[in-house]
Amino acid sequence: MSFDHASSSLGRVVALSGGIGGAKLALGLRNVLEPNRLAIIANTGDDFEHLGLHISPDIDTLLYTLSGMSDPERGWGRANETWNFMAAMAELGGETWFRLGDRDLAMHIERTRKLRAGDSLTAVTAETAARLNLGCEVFPMTDTPVRTFVTTDEGRLAFQDYFVRRQCRPAVTDISFEGIEEAIVGERLAEVLRGEVDAIVVCPSNPFISIEPILAVPRMRELLRATGAPIVAVSPIIGRDSVKGPTAKMFREMGLESTSSEVAKRYSGFVDLMIFDASDAMERPKDMPVITSHTFMASLEDREQLARVVLNAARASKDRMAYD
Amino acid sequence: MSFDHASSSLGRVVALSGGIGGAKLALGLRNVLEPNRLAIIANTGDDFEHLGLHISPDIDTLLYTLSGMSDPERGWGRANETWNFMAAMAELGGETWFRLGDRDLAMHIERTRKLRAGDSLTAVTAETAARLNLGCEVFPMTDTPVRTFVTTDEGRLAFQDYFVRRQCRPAVTDISFEGIEEAIVGERLAEVLRGEVDAIVVCPSNPFISIEPILAVPRMRELLRATGAPIVAVSPIIGRDSVKGPTAKMFREMGLESTSSEVAKRYSGFVDLMIFDASDAMERPKDMPVITSHTFMASLEDREQLARVVLNAARASKDRMAYD
Repeated sequence: MSFDHASSSLGRVVALSGGIGGAKLALGLRNVLEPNRLAIIANTGDDFEHLGLHISPDIDTLLYTLSGMSDPERGWGRANETWNFMAAMAELGGETWFRLGDRDLAMHIERTRKLRAGDSLTAVTAETAARLNLGCEVFPMTDTPVRTFVTTDEGRLAFQDYFVRRQCRPAVTDISFEGIEEAIVGERLAEVLRGEVDAIVVCPSNPFISIEPILAVPRMRELLRATGAPIVAVSPIIGRDSVKGPTAKMFREMGLESTSSEVAKRYSGFVDLMIFDASDAMERPKDMPVITSHTFMASLEDREQLARVVLNAARASKDRMAYD
Repeated sequence: MSFDHASSSLGRVVALSGGIGGAKLALGLRNVLEPNRLAIIANTGDDFEHLGLHISPDIDTLLYTLSGMSDPERGWGRANETWNFMAAMAELGGETWFRLGDRDLAMHIERTRKLRAGDSLTAVTAETAARLNLGCEVFPMTDTPVRTFVTTDEGRLAFQDYFVRRQCRPAVTDISFEGIEEAIVGERLAEVLRGEVDAIVVCPSNPFISIEPILAVPRMRELLRATGAPIVAVSPIIGRDSVKGPTAKMFREMGLESTSSEVAKRYSGFVDLMIFDASDAMERPKDMPVITSHTFMASLEDREQLARVVLNAARASKDRMAYD
């Protein structure tokens, strides 16, 4: 499907995404757009060094989801995965709290090797995306290290310590992105954003830990806004809860309501239009146009359908902007 | 079995070993000696950095063989190994000429992590040996990097490039050990060698690439000789051929006969007594006492039997030395 049949020169659709939920919509967008029209900006605040390897969980979830290699049950990691490395690590007394599958390890080892050799994360990710024939681009939000930390009732924790090791049990009171002041939008990504962009899509990812780190990269908001493209966000909240992960729990811990309206409030001033799930159709956030749809993405058809809704909403918003 | 029933204080038996062939005799020695009497000095000239990981092939073969984890067919690597990491590396376009099994990877990743954290190879190896309950000690010949290079008809090659990637096909004309001048016998190993040592065993490993790098470490020969213990070597040549690997081929390429007598010549001045296979019983090397035995180690019983022969020969040699 073409985003804009009438347009002679098609611009890019730029999607901002975290891990599992965002990757689902990214897959839908890739499938319904012409090849190579989608550019995804991935959160790297979840990245960390583990066992001497550079791990980029959100980039990997995107790469695996978009290449059809992902495990449909777990949502993260690869399908047909085996865990013999982990079993051997346990035998040797090594750390096993962060599970790395045997096949998945190839990604981390190759990436780490290339980064040590001096390649940028942007270059390594582009190479892998090309190798896996994604038919779209995946960019890290920055090539410099940014690390998300959460302040909790159990102290200040590195993100994966909170997210995986403690399974999001601690109550979060604050979130910070170490290194964010020094972060730089990569040259290739900046080039894409200076080119023709038809729509910007904020995927249904956790605002606090997936989308806000991306937007906190210096110049990122300005570059995105300067495209002039409509910015459409899909709320990750469905009926006051999150589909997966700690989004709703975090809202409550931060003293906020776990509603799509609260998501809209966080995105206000940046996003032009939001898509809420039909179950939240009664909500009417201030100063934010809302379209309701079916946003729970169980099947591939759900993902593609939501992608069409998002792109149509962006087009409508663009047309309206053109008449303003 | 006690090496010396009459002795009130039992000293250590120190074995010099490369990979597969040496590890077989090391296993026999460990089994027939009292717990913790065996100390093995492993060649590290074969070590290399691959995919960002520190690989110590001879140490690993020893650790896996002595812990019962080794693959009985291949001789290297682990039993019940899977190769999904390698398959994924191929998908990603990574290097696959050096095969790393899924379970085996845990060893390399843990070792590399600890070395990067500042641990010595001696410490990392000792920790793993303890973890795997080897009942003996394994020492790298040195903690500093030594890298074997071979000069061949295809140029000067890093050892694993010659050994694995080119499967020993190039003809070798010279061998050198980079970093050997700076190599240092580790403090803990030096301590063992300054303690009570009852016998020194040169395992049936390749003299050029497994034993000579060990002996080329500055002070190593002197420390070994200064123990006063008899030094017994088992020839890796059986009937003018080597059991596994390029030993016999290398002898011929270096313009030498591939005989046990030629091995004896290389060890002359260091080794006190050699064990030849019965098939080489007709050979009578100059200036080297020889005992013949069955040295082909197919079964565990073969390994333990050869270990007994070696230890008895060492004892006899020691008694003789005492009467000299």
